[in-house]
Amino acid sequence: MRAQADGHHPELNIALEYLLSSGGKRVRPAVALLIGGMLGGDPQRLVTLGAAIELLHTATLVHDDLIDGALFRRGIATLNARWSPAATVLAGDFIFARAAKLAAETESGRVIKLFAETLATIVNGEITQMFTSRGTINRDDYYRRIYAKTASMFELASTAAAYLSPVDDQAVAAARNYGYEIGMAFQIVDDVLDFTAEPGIVGKPVARDLRQGVLTLPVLCYLEKNSDDSRMYDWMNSRILDADHLDGLIDSIRASGAIQEAMEEAERYMECALAALRGQPESVERQALEELSRYVVHREL
Amino acid sequence: MRAQADGHHPELNIALEYLLSSGGKRVRPAVALLIGGMLGGDPQRLVTLGAAIELLHTATLVHDDLIDGALFRRGIATLNARWSPAATVLAGDFIFARAAKLAAETESGRVIKLFAETLATIVNGEITQMFTSRGTINRDDYYRRIYAKTASMFELASTAAAYLSPVDDQAVAAARNYGYEIGMAFQIVDDVLDFTAEPGIVGKPVARDLRQGVLTLPVLCYLEKNSDDSRMYDWMNSRILDADHLDGLIDSIRASGAIQEAMEEAERYMECALAALRGQPESVERQALEELSRYVVHREL
Repeated sequence: MRAQADGHHPELNIALEYLLSSGGKRVRPAVALLIGGMLGGDPQRLVTLGAAIELLHTATLVHDDLIDGALFRRGIATLNARWSPAATVLAGDFIFARAAKLAAETESGRVIKLFAETLATIVNGEITQMFTSRGTINRDDYYRRIYAKTASMFELASTAAAYLSPVDDQAVAAARNYGYEIGMAFQIVDDVLDFTAEPGIVGKPVARDLRQGVLTLPVLCYLEKNSDDSRMYDWMNSRILDADHLDGLIDSIRASGAIQEAMEEAERYMECALAALRGQPESVERQALEELSRYVVHREL
Repeated sequence: MRAQADGHHPELNIALEYLLSSGGKRVRPAVALLIGGMLGGDPQRLVTLGAAIELLHTATLVHDDLIDGALFRRGIATLNARWSPAATVLAGDFIFARAAKLAAETESGRVIKLFAETLATIVNGEITQMFTSRGTINRDDYYRRIYAKTASMFELASTAAAYLSPVDDQAVAAARNYGYEIGMAFQIVDDVLDFTAEPGIVGKPVARDLRQGVLTLPVLCYLEKNSDDSRMYDWMNSRILDADHLDGLIDSIRASGAIQEAMEEAERYMECALAALRGQPESVERQALEELSRYVVHREL
């Protein structure tokens, strides 16, 4: 990944190094490498795939943070906090280009097409969210949104890894299922952590999504049981609610069973992910995928 | 091209339709179709390639106009003049994704890799220009810049078309040369037209590049002969020059031999482009490429 700016402008090298040094869990390439390892794929091509996927993910984050005006991610300043908007747009474009180059180097037409389709899915999801009036979301919309935002890229990681392995369509379908299910679980847990993480740890307020008008599963669970809480409607319809009322609403959601209910949903997805592994060959990679699946659901920030 | 937003958010359909309806000369796909036609490539794959290239070009324009804050292109409002910056970034990303999908549908690994490399070249060129202090440009920098900005995509069009044709390496090299040479000519003429077009026709002032601190070939030719014109250095080094002095400088460049000299340079590139066609099979496509080459140099705005 780090070599991808070599031969280009030094500032691109600096930006790429900076973005990659901020860490991140590299869960998506881990899924690709483990699925491919389990299915007997070629290690070199799997590493190329993993790098392509992590760079695709990085490029989308660069543009997302610019769009959201986010100043921190993973505790360090975002690129847009340091660079002009213009340079940040271009840095994201450059990383897209390098991700596409790496995808092409897998030499698999199916991988490349899925890669391009996934980018379109992600961007379409963001556009849809941008043009959707607030307060109109239901569970179906939520699942569609987190599929586009997160699960689609896990599905890409697992499916593309299977494409690079000597396996039949049934194994490809199982790999795809695994990526889908674990990706859905991953995002639901992210949305739960937005409510449960102690403020200050990651330099962001509790329930940042809700404060920005974005409804996630904990809120939807709360609404289903507390349809008479007018604070919710006041907030979503007018975005006018004084700070005390908003904090009170967030406390109510945190204290309700909604958090637990959302976590149970994430666990159901995890169980489906584990089920998708069941017919697969016994191996250290399969064992690692099982551990990764449990980590995804039980991780903390 | 128009079908590429089908199945996605209606606003993306509207944006794509709007961008494509604004016309444009479609010179890049024309080069791809004619080179491929001349070399006996498969028409269906060539059409897919042409659409991929025009969409790649469109996506770069969407982000460029956003970065430059340009409000008009081809006489109609740019997307960023109608949409928020955030939506415009995403619309560009979406069109990149669809261009990549179409490139993948050519089913040629070489085409796909060249496609990704070209996007990296274009973006690297823009980053380089952004981080380069003004007033330090020489002819070599200029040629590098217009290669990255324009000729690289013409080279992609001609080379990828040859990749999709049943021809040997020598014919591929000739096609690549053609694209390179005609792309360089195309951009030099663009830069000349920026000086010679009557103001008002395209809703932009004469010498917009120079006004924005960008030095193009007419200016470099002028400088080579008029190294004592202090207005030039005052403008590039401090960007402080009253409007009358700047207009006077532009008039001096227009009245000098610099415009003619730059046009002669464009004609030399065109001659090299025509030379690259010489060993190729006689055909209506070759004849059309010859006409296209002359059009590129003798066109008006």
